[in-house]
Amino acid sequence: MPEPGPFTVTHTDGRARRGVLRTPHGVVQTPAFMPVGTAGAVKAVTHRDLLQLGAEIILANTYHLLLRPGDRLIGNAGGLHRFIGWSRPLLTDSGGYQVFSLAQRRSVSEEGVCFRSHLDGSPHLLTPEGATEAQARLGADVAMAFDECTPFPVTKEEALRSMELTTRWGRRARARFLELQAAGDDTAVTNRGQLQFGIVQGGVYPDLRERHAGETLATGFDGYAIGGLSVGEPVELMYEVAGRTAELLPAAGPRYLMGVGTPLDLVEMVGHGIDLFDCVLPTRNARNGQLFTSAGPINIRNARYGADEQPADPECGCYTCRQFSRAYLRHLCAANEITAATLGTLHNLHFYLDTMRRIGEAITFGSFATFRQRFHQQYSRRSHSTQGGAAQLQ
Amino acid sequence: MPEPGPFTVTHTDGRARRGVLRTPHGVVQTPAFMPVGTAGAVKAVTHRDLLQLGAEIILANTYHLLLRPGDRLIGNAGGLHRFIGWSRPLLTDSGGYQVFSLAQRRSVSEEGVCFRSHLDGSPHLLTPEGATEAQARLGADVAMAFDECTPFPVTKEEALRSMELTTRWGRRARARFLELQAAGDDTAVTNRGQLQFGIVQGGVYPDLRERHAGETLATGFDGYAIGGLSVGEPVELMYEVAGRTAELLPAAGPRYLMGVGTPLDLVEMVGHGIDLFDCVLPTRNARNGQLFTSAGPINIRNARYGADEQPADPECGCYTCRQFSRAYLRHLCAANEITAATLGTLHNLHFYLDTMRRIGEAITFGSFATFRQRFHQQYSRRSHSTQGGAAQLQ
Repeated sequence: MPEPGPFTVTHTDGRARRGVLRTPHGVVQTPAFMPVGTAGAVKAVTHRDLLQLGAEIILANTYHLLLRPGDRLIGNAGGLHRFIGWSRPLLTDSGGYQVFSLAQRRSVSEEGVCFRSHLDGSPHLLTPEGATEAQARLGADVAMAFDECTPFPVTKEEALRSMELTTRWGRRARARFLELQAAGDDTAVTNRGQLQFGIVQGGVYPDLRERHAGETLATGFDGYAIGGLSVGEPVELMYEVAGRTAELLPAAGPRYLMGVGTPLDLVEMVGHGIDLFDCVLPTRNARNGQLFTSAGPINIRNARYGADEQPADPECGCYTCRQFSRAYLRHLCAANEITAATLGTLHNLHFYLDTMRRIGEAITFGSFATFRQRFHQQYSRRSHSTQGGAAQLQ
Repeated sequence: MPEPGPFTVTHTDGRARRGVLRTPHGVVQTPAFMPVGTAGAVKAVTHRDLLQLGAEIILANTYHLLLRPGDRLIGNAGGLHRFIGWSRPLLTDSGGYQVFSLAQRRSVSEEGVCFRSHLDGSPHLLTPEGATEAQARLGADVAMAFDECTPFPVTKEEALRSMELTTRWGRRARARFLELQAAGDDTAVTNRGQLQFGIVQGGVYPDLRERHAGETLATGFDGYAIGGLSVGEPVELMYEVAGRTAELLPAAGPRYLMGVGTPLDLVEMVGHGIDLFDCVLPTRNARNGQLFTSAGPINIRNARYGADEQPADPECGCYTCRQFSRAYLRHLCAANEITAATLGTLHNLHFYLDTMRRIGEAITFGSFATFRQRFHQQYSRRSHSTQGGAAQLQ
């Protein structure tokens, strides 16, 4: 009998699944949303806030940590969990996405990517092996293979070239990962217990996605991610490509849709069999005053909320909505109070995490289709009424 | 038998006292430090953080709230407690200090102060009656009489002129306050249950302080504050003036030293019979990386902490010190993470509030003098070692 994998599907409802991902730092119930803790902190909240919110896993960015404070410093401190004081599961990305979106003067070769830090201009080389080793030093529960992420739009020729490079890089990343695992604790860098996910690219071209899914599965990882989406393409196209790609990934393994998305995206994509998500929307948008509510997003900076004594979302049970009015939240935003970012982030993360919990329950009861329909109806209400209200105010 | 006042001294130890201040929103155990919540929020933390830290009373600035979102808006929302969602005691200052330190193009007349908002340049007139009414609308548990705060240095002539104006303003503020109290709930503005403290000015001139204490007591308030200190004068002079002024204030009433100070100042001034303090130091300095510890202040941004796995203060039991290393806190500061401000503020406020609790216990056990001596010895240790370290690094 083969050793059981790290992932077990416990319930299915159509293509939607509920499952459990086992990691060295505990289990993650899926479908799960991972709050983004770029530099080792989810912006504007504390770890104890995240525990209270029920976050079971957070994501940190290898690129940022590599540049500051450095993966070696973190490794010497006992790894990322210990350095940042977070004892639940962690996922680190490969650095690939940020190298392409943030770094300066990058040049891509077969070996890897040369780039200059966006912080101080210092030169760096990131290779599939190097990204794997850096993530081993960080010691997250889940590491990602180094990939190249194409923008949108991109020609099919370019998408193909990039995808083939990602395949070769994925093989090298996996080989280095397995070497480290085989070496156990005998090497300077250990990745014992760590899982490594491969990333399927291919732009918005169905045949490339299909081919690259095959190549990535052939390399063989502990889980599979869909990358290169939510980079500017129309949302319907994203749904179609992600949905079709998800079908090509093993049903027995975890499927991770990287960098997605809005609450509607999450509901939609769970319906296509996705298990894991990460996105900066709930945290970043909170800092700009956008709050996600059961009736759609609102911008709490709007003057219409100046004397509004209702909670941000009357149907929400989070700390922010239990304790504070829209008028107070708007005031805090207007006064540029840091607490505005904290209260907004607490609410938005609660909304995301609670949505995932409700999705999970719906799957268990076989009522996901009904949940999805009602969620859409309710969530789209305010989008209309807000626009109407905004028009009236103008 | 006269009605008992709002304040009871429960223990004395030399001139240091322990007591209880009764307010409409509950009791405050003194000596107490009031975290500053300028615009209705203590910067970088949430109210639930403050409750966990054991803060029994916070201060809000009338000047800031008057300009944004407006005292009438807050009054219409049911008062400041309800507007900001804080159910424990609140103190509002009179606006006088900020009018002199922040507002633009101010002109002082017998009637009050004309000024322009530092936010949008809009013109405002603040009078003793107006400040009293604004604070009645805000509905804090403790309101302050409108005063003029002189800078340091100031001529005796100018200090005398200003002090006499503050006496006349104090009488008008008290008269309006008592009118509102007598009117009960029949007027548009009610201040039922609110306490009003008078402010003793007089610069650093002992005879002026003595004369003004007499004038302020003659007006008659529910408590007395010492204003106009910590505005640039040498700390020893501040101790001397505050100490001598405190002796002139009724032993049966609460004594509040406004805008003071460092941890050493608090210990020293409790020893001179002060009961209440407020200061932006623990919150503002946390946002700049300065952490107050039992061995003196440290600046966590310093490169020496880059790989330091100790907590900020090894003797501290706060969330920040229980969970995080200096290296992580320094990293968060370097990365400009909002969470750095939050964790630093949590620590500094814990240090201040815990120091006040320890002072209170020492007074109960009659060991305040020993406590004071040990606190000084321990707190001054790092001041030397830090300077030495800083010198080495330069």
